[in-house]
Amino acid sequence: MKNTFGNSVSLTIFGESHGPAVGAVLDGLAPGIAVDEAFIARQLELRRPFGKISTGRCEADPFEILSGVFEGRTTGTPLCIVIPNKDTKSRDYEATRALARPGHADYTAHVKYHGFEDYRGGGHFSGRVTAALVAAGAVALSALRENGILVGTHVARCGGAADRDFGDLREDLARLNEARFAVLDEAKGREMQAAIEAAAAQGDSLGGVLETAVAGLPAGVGEPWFDSLESMLAHALFSIPAVKGVEFGAGFAMAEGPGSRWNDPFCLEDGEIRTRSNHNGGINGGVSNGMPLLFRCAVKPTPSIYKEQDTVDFLAGTEAKLRLEGRHDPAVVHRARVVADSVTALVLCDALALRYGTDWPGGLAR
Amino acid sequence: MKNTFGNSVSLTIFGESHGPAVGAVLDGLAPGIAVDEAFIARQLELRRPFGKISTGRCEADPFEILSGVFEGRTTGTPLCIVIPNKDTKSRDYEATRALARPGHADYTAHVKYHGFEDYRGGGHFSGRVTAALVAAGAVALSALRENGILVGTHVARCGGAADRDFGDLREDLARLNEARFAVLDEAKGREMQAAIEAAAAQGDSLGGVLETAVAGLPAGVGEPWFDSLESMLAHALFSIPAVKGVEFGAGFAMAEGPGSRWNDPFCLEDGEIRTRSNHNGGINGGVSNGMPLLFRCAVKPTPSIYKEQDTVDFLAGTEAKLRLEGRHDPAVVHRARVVADSVTALVLCDALALRYGTDWPGGLAR
Amino acid sequence: MKNTFGNSVSLTIFGESHGPAVGAVLDGLAPGIAVDEAFIARQLELRRPFGKISTGRCEADPFEILSGVFEGRTTGTPLCIVIPNKDTKSRDYEATRALARPGHADYTAHVKYHGFEDYRGGGHFSGRVTAALVAAGAVALSALRENGILVGTHVARCGGAADRDFGDLREDLARLNEARFAVLDEAKGREMQAAIEAAAAQGDSLGGVLETAVAGLPAGVGEPWFDSLESMLAHALFSIPAVKGVEFGAGFAMAEGPGSRWNDPFCLEDGEIRTRSNHNGGINGGVSNGMPLLFRCAVKPTPSIYKEQDTVDFLAGTEAKLRLEGRHDPAVVHRARVVADSVTALVLCDALALRYGTDWPGGLAR
Amino acid sequence: MKNTFGNSVSLTIFGESHGPAVGAVLDGLAPGIAVDEAFIARQLELRRPFGKISTGRCEADPFEILSGVFEGRTTGTPLCIVIPNKDTKSRDYEATRALARPGHADYTAHVKYHGFEDYRGGGHFSGRVTAALVAAGAVALSALRENGILVGTHVARCGGAADRDFGDLREDLARLNEARFAVLDEAKGREMQAAIEAAAAQGDSLGGVLETAVAGLPAGVGEPWFDSLESMLAHALFSIPAVKGVEFGAGFAMAEGPGSRWNDPFCLEDGEIRTRSNHNGGINGGVSNGMPLLFRCAVKPTPSIYKEQDTVDFLAGTEAKLRLEGRHDPAVVHRARVVADSVTALVLCDALALRYGTDWPGGLAR
Repeated sequence: MKNTFGNSVSLTIFGESHGPAVGAVLDGLAPGIAVDEAFIARQLELRRPFGKISTGRCEADPFEILSGVFEGRTTGTPLCIVIPNKDTKSRDYEATRALARPGHADYTAHVKYHGFEDYRGGGHFSGRVTAALVAAGAVALSALRENGILVGTHVARCGGAADRDFGDLREDLARLNEARFAVLDEAKGREMQAAIEAAAAQGDSLGGVLETAVAGLPAGVGEPWFDSLESMLAHALFSIPAVKGVEFGAGFAMAEGPGSRWNDPFCLEDGEIRTRSNHNGGINGGVSNGMPLLFRCAVKPTPSIYKEQDTVDFLAGTEAKLRLEGRHDPAVVHRARVVADSVTALVLCDALALRYGTDWPGGLAR
Repeated sequence: MKNTFGNSVSLTIFGESHGPAVGAVLDGLAPGIAVDEAFIARQLELRRPFGKISTGRCEADPFEILSGVFEGRTTGTPLCIVIPNKDTKSRDYEATRALARPGHADYTAHVKYHGFEDYRGGGHFSGRVTAALVAAGAVALSALRENGILVGTHVARCGGAADRDFGDLREDLARLNEARFAVLDEAKGREMQAAIEAAAAQGDSLGGVLETAVAGLPAGVGEPWFDSLESMLAHALFSIPAVKGVEFGAGFAMAEGPGSRWNDPFCLEDGEIRTRSNHNGGINGGVSNGMPLLFRCAVKPTPSIYKEQDTVDFLAGTEAKLRLEGRHDPAVVHRARVVADSVTALVLCDALALRYGTDWPGGLAR
Repeated sequence: MKNTFGNSVSLTIFGESHGPAVGAVLDGLAPGIAVDEAFIARQLELRRPFGKISTGRCEADPFEILSGVFEGRTTGTPLCIVIPNKDTKSRDYEATRALARPGHADYTAHVKYHGFEDYRGGGHFSGRVTAALVAAGAVALSALRENGILVGTHVARCGGAADRDFGDLREDLARLNEARFAVLDEAKGREMQAAIEAAAAQGDSLGGVLETAVAGLPAGVGEPWFDSLESMLAHALFSIPAVKGVEFGAGFAMAEGPGSRWNDPFCLEDGEIRTRSNHNGGINGGVSNGMPLLFRCAVKPTPSIYKEQDTVDFLAGTEAKLRLEGRHDPAVVHRARVVADSVTALVLCDALALRYGTDWPGGLAR
Repeated sequence: MKNTFGNSVSLTIFGESHGPAVGAVLDGLAPGIAVDEAFIARQLELRRPFGKISTGRCEADPFEILSGVFEGRTTGTPLCIVIPNKDTKSRDYEATRALARPGHADYTAHVKYHGFEDYRGGGHFSGRVTAALVAAGAVALSALRENGILVGTHVARCGGAADRDFGDLREDLARLNEARFAVLDEAKGREMQAAIEAAAAQGDSLGGVLETAVAGLPAGVGEPWFDSLESMLAHALFSIPAVKGVEFGAGFAMAEGPGSRWNDPFCLEDGEIRTRSNHNGGINGGVSNGMPLLFRCAVKPTPSIYKEQDTVDFLAGTEAKLRLEGRHDPAVVHRARVVADSVTALVLCDALALRYGTDWPGGLAR
């Protein structure tokens, strides 16, 4: 199903950049989860553009919960969140409708939808739709947190600067979840923001690498083969626009060097089975092993740049020059981190519900 | 669904390393596809260990098609292929049953299945199950080829050596599909094999990077968001044991450098819309753009090494030393490439059937 | 997935009787289908209570399309329709919250959702949610009609009266789709309405049998076994509250009498293969045979009656008496017919998209 | 997915009547369920033709479990059961290949599969495939029984005779599960068999009504709307060839008479919440209410009759006469009951696993 993902807990998303609203339907989550509207608003806030390093389009993202919540808690029935679109300037896009923006989905949307696509601002392909992921993800993150499972993401690399690795994981995750620009080393974060500003000054853009960690996931969650945690997480992560790579644990580095380096020896810590290293990112055979989940996403630079680009006019069938106007982010990697947290939480809630039943979480905590 | 993947065209896999058989049920493929048993056998042959660089376990992989083929062609109903297990030495594994092999799924399987797992040779987690993927994938590859779509994979990096990039794509793919050790530059292939042999001599193992290309996929295939080509392909690729990273186009490299470098400018070639570069790997917004698909998988070194390793005895609850015996590959990356081709073909057949209907392929070719 | 149904074309529903809104997300329908808001409103009107034979709750059912429509046509991306709840009297329900209404889902909802359910007016179990099915179904019905496929339902039996059988099918379907109380024989319809009024006068309720026909479905649509047209249609029809039976063609009557009576002999009509009778309801082996689809649903009487009933107080754990107040329909069968049309259309659009691809319909008509 | 059904517990079926084998892959069932091969054989035996009232084709149905069982118990990974076809007389069918048998899927298969279908004995549409449902269903039935849930079906009506209603349910179910011809009143069973023999003597066939009951299902299982127990069960039941109607509880009878008659008043029995009557068949709002599940299937007469029938030759495009030869059952209703038990068990295992997690059953019983 195209815009629905998940098995026992599933998410359906809808909306276009310049239509009335974007939104999501979160189904199958246990009843009784406290729905914290302030936390949803905070997560949406973290997704929004800010400061000099983001687009001028800046909506307050008010949202409305249409169903699935009663007296402040989930009912167990579908929870629909709608986020109206307000600050849209549709005229920016009409003139250049048939000039396929390189790196964007204008051309592929046109081929796929035969010209009936809503082409304004990328339509349904717009990053705007990730606001729906974030709103629904906030509820999933709350469900995890109630059960002692923490998720967090930092900008591990951007503009030549590299953040430090995770240390005390729960402390680092708590800090990241408060941060506006999510880095563990704030000096590195300032370097990254400076690099983004420099790219913006040249009408260009930057990407980066996001690293996500999950603390507290019990061992035994996930499936071998097609519903492996890696498969399910990667499926959801690659749904985030601009993500072009996903790796777990040491990832591509494991393609080099001998097996003796990358195997994670098992040991006992306070009687619990752990591994000394975590090169496999907390997953063996698709199933969680009780260590933190660890994975990274490559986020490409925003394709919307102000430099003149070669393209085609796909209606006229001619080559053309494109010079974008309007408001565009010089980077989205720092905004995408809350999207990564959100889809991670959705996948984990699904995997946990499959393993522990539809009453999870809650059967555990309440 | 755990061992089933796909929407209109789906695959279900089953089997354990030391059980009676592994196999697959391929459902939803169009009727009328010629089923070439010699090609299936050839693909299984490419997956099998060979030479000094592979395990001594070497089965001829006879297979039996139990359903779905009539008079040499697919019927359109489920095609079940079974590959019996013959050359199994179960005693190798029993003694070390509770000694979790680092990097393997012994421990996670034990937690997940509460001790009821078939622990011999990795059971259902064994790479042996990929024979079923390859057998079913051969039929999917035939379906694609009948419609002018070619898939192929080479070992892009292994043991410090890097293969050359793709050149004339159709020619390169045809060559790779004949090759025993799939490289475009045979001298590099010899380097890689020497490196694997050297690792084996030290009781160690190597990984590598696989690069897959697809020629001939029309534009407009795939969906935005959850059923994006990237999501669906990554989902299937991460189901392959030992794959720990997947990237599309320039992938993680796009996290560096400016947008102006990574955007692929559109142009006209013989009246067709193309892009000058292909940093996005043939996919924009989750939908194919008519350029070749291009993606890479990081394959970790075989975790089965002969060096002594620290581990735990998870039944006794004690720390322990593990020294593996038996037959183990010093590398699987060169064998995994035919698995990558197979799951790629399955995902594409599904995406094409969704777009063009259950008669695809065939409506086009016949 | 619990509130999502369909494969290539899917529907997700949400909402509670007394929450902010009910709604639906229709995904996967082809781009370019004209979206006729007047027709949606008309369908919602047909679902609404009317006259003496329905509840006093009478909302105008304004709806809002949040996504998936651009310049009056479907875009091919998810179409979200929201229908706000306005005329709710929540206080009617609170006092009797723990008094399980016989025939309703109060008790099962309480067990399933552990007391977190929105119990007002049946919450997510309320027939109110069918408004969402009807709104989305209207778009699916339009898509079918554009391709010459007509769907319609009449009240075949109610209160001891039986409507006549279908005659000239397209003419009858067109008439039904205009009718307020859908019968082919208006005298019979008056008898039925009189019977409903008589039941209402006694504080009681009535059910009935709905018969649905589909004209114009080509042969070859549907699958054997689990995705048979019968399986998919019955799945969706049994989702309609109060439906307790579904039969295709002659249905339960076929359990009696010999095979020679119920087989449908094939013949040629103007060179087309047809069957002389249609006891199998247009389906052989799960696949359409080119004859009209024909099936019936048993709709039970509204369980909300004004007579005193025995029940339990499931919070107090005591037996109790229940006397309902508030507004309740003495029958829903005549309102449910437009729901039956709607889910039928959704299932057929899915089956047609699977067979003919995501461009169906439109590839055919445009 | 066409030949796969279920969410957390799923079944995939394959095979043709005259191909090498039929079979099934059962995935997602909990680890540790005892797999009783004698019980599987017994269930297959109950499905087989017997005595004068069945076809002469009579195979011993040896089966082979290829995966998913280790040391006599389920491993939790996919369980593949294969049942080879042996007693096939393919020549019976070839001559009449293009003469569409009325009531069969020959013509629809031809349209759907464009002539590539295996037309021998109905191919994949053959009732032979139900042997795979029965073999897999036997494992599901065992899983339920281990947890105190009993399933059983009787021939409620056939040839003008009607069996008695269920009395002491667990006793009746135990008896049915031992019976060769499943009735509660053996005198009625003899009447039914005599009626079948009489129809056979005239070259004709009979259908009947099956009634299934389930004892021991806890309240709170199932979902509102699309995954209602009624929707899921009906989906699976309509996959059984020849089933043309399904009704729950009082079913079509509820379409008549007032609501006050059909509501099931709640009461307390030994402190447990029960209903005095069970007209709703143990389901309210799609969710189990703790009462026995009760439903009926209408099974049409075998369409294979020996009387001359009108048909068409769909290759020649001419009208034709058809006189069947070969071996055909004069009734399948008595054989289909074990198929009804099987699909019921599969659906319930899925619903229970969704509610209680993948360890169900076992978490409860072990």
